[in-house]
Amino acid sequence: MDDVRIIEIKESIFADNDKEADRIRERLKKEKTFLLNVMSSPGSGKTTTLIRTIDALKDQLRIGVMEADIDSSVDAEKIAGTGVKSIQLHTGGMCHLDAGMTEQGLNELGTEELDLAILENVGNLVCPAEFDTGAVKNVMILSVPEGHDKPLKYPLIFTVCDALIINKIDVLPYFDFDMEKVVEYAHMRNPKLEVFKVSAKTGEGMEAWIQWLKTQVEAFKA
Amino acid sequence: MDDVRIIEIKESIFADNDKEADRIRERLKKEKTFLLNVMSSPGSGKTTTLIRTIDALKDQLRIGVMEADIDSSVDAEKIAGTGVKSIQLHTGGMCHLDAGMTEQGLNELGTEELDLAILENVGNLVCPAEFDTGAVKNVMILSVPEGHDKPLKYPLIFTVCDALIINKIDVLPYFDFDMEKVVEYAHMRNPKLEVFKVSAKTGEGMEAWIQWLKTQVEAFKA
Repeated sequence: MDDVRIIEIKESIFADNDKEADRIRERLKKEKTFLLNVMSSPGSGKTTTLIRTIDALKDQLRIGVMEADIDSSVDAEKIAGTGVKSIQLHTGGMCHLDAGMTEQGLNELGTEELDLAILENVGNLVCPAEFDTGAVKNVMILSVPEGHDKPLKYPLIFTVCDALIINKIDVLPYFDFDMEKVVEYAHMRNPKLEVFKVSAKTGEGMEAWIQWLKTQVEAFKA
Repeated sequence: MDDVRIIEIKESIFADNDKEADRIRERLKKEKTFLLNVMSSPGSGKTTTLIRTIDALKDQLRIGVMEADIDSSVDAEKIAGTGVKSIQLHTGGMCHLDAGMTEQGLNELGTEELDLAILENVGNLVCPAEFDTGAVKNVMILSVPEGHDKPLKYPLIFTVCDALIINKIDVLPYFDFDMEKVVEYAHMRNPKLEVFKVSAKTGEGMEAWIQWLKTQVEAFKA
């Protein structure tokens, strides 16, 4: 599994990130490639959630994945195990990806033959939320052990996301996590946020999320 | 509990952060105030760990706490419950504190009467590691649900810390967390890292950490 391609992406030179992101969205629209940007804290279960999602959709959609990290290629290797194309992006210490950096990854991934390109952003609730990557939809994962107060402390990421996956519900009995409150706080930040309660480990609740994603991709390609 | 003081700290104007950090360390050395910088992912249990630590030491040391967050004052309110001085710093969206921002907090906290000033940094494994705050010691908390691969993905924070607290060991049975591997990976980044395995929730293992911190503060003041 050591043959995963590692791309050292460079800090982007564009002054206007939003403009650059719009240009990428235009390009992907023409290619009919749906870009999903996945954000979360370190260790919330992004990769495990993606593996379940890919396993459910890979026979229906052509999927490619970009794993962004400061260092290591452990995530890209795990994703490669699903059989879909997976590359590892190293950010050179940067805490997020902007549109230009995302495009460097898309170019390496090759999007023309893909229905769905997934970017697993750097684990961080602050910086990634500040940069439009050109994605069609943004999704964030919040895991039960992180606590239900996160929408109060990290408002922006809840505001910019279209969907919130609450992961690790299998360990709810062992944590003081108030599910009603977290949904209330999240909707305070963003009333339109779609919420999915899942355990990527056991598979519980994954179907609704996968169905939502599939519907989004199909609507985009239509 | 709504009377916690909230300070809006401003992005610092100093070009040379390391020089500024050294100046703060000099000042605190004269005042005999030990500054501890606590870093981690969101939701790793920084506040709960600090509450246990403060409860154990508050009769022996004069302690003050700065809680840094993008928004909310939930953590400063929890710390205020221990009876020590606690202020909330809002970073204006910034993902970390640098030395100048830390000093704004120290000035508001008032360090002259303190033996131990604690900075709970913004929850983030990337940006806080890049900025010397002027602290005497840096400690990071990694919680079991985050996984044992974090030293591979976020090398810098393990390199700049003096101690690593592995928190939430009470939930070890419910997660695939390899304790041997995480310690091996962490020591690969930093062979001198002191490692403490604790559950801030149950109190297990907290004594060794608290004893270490107390020894550091006493050595500094001597």
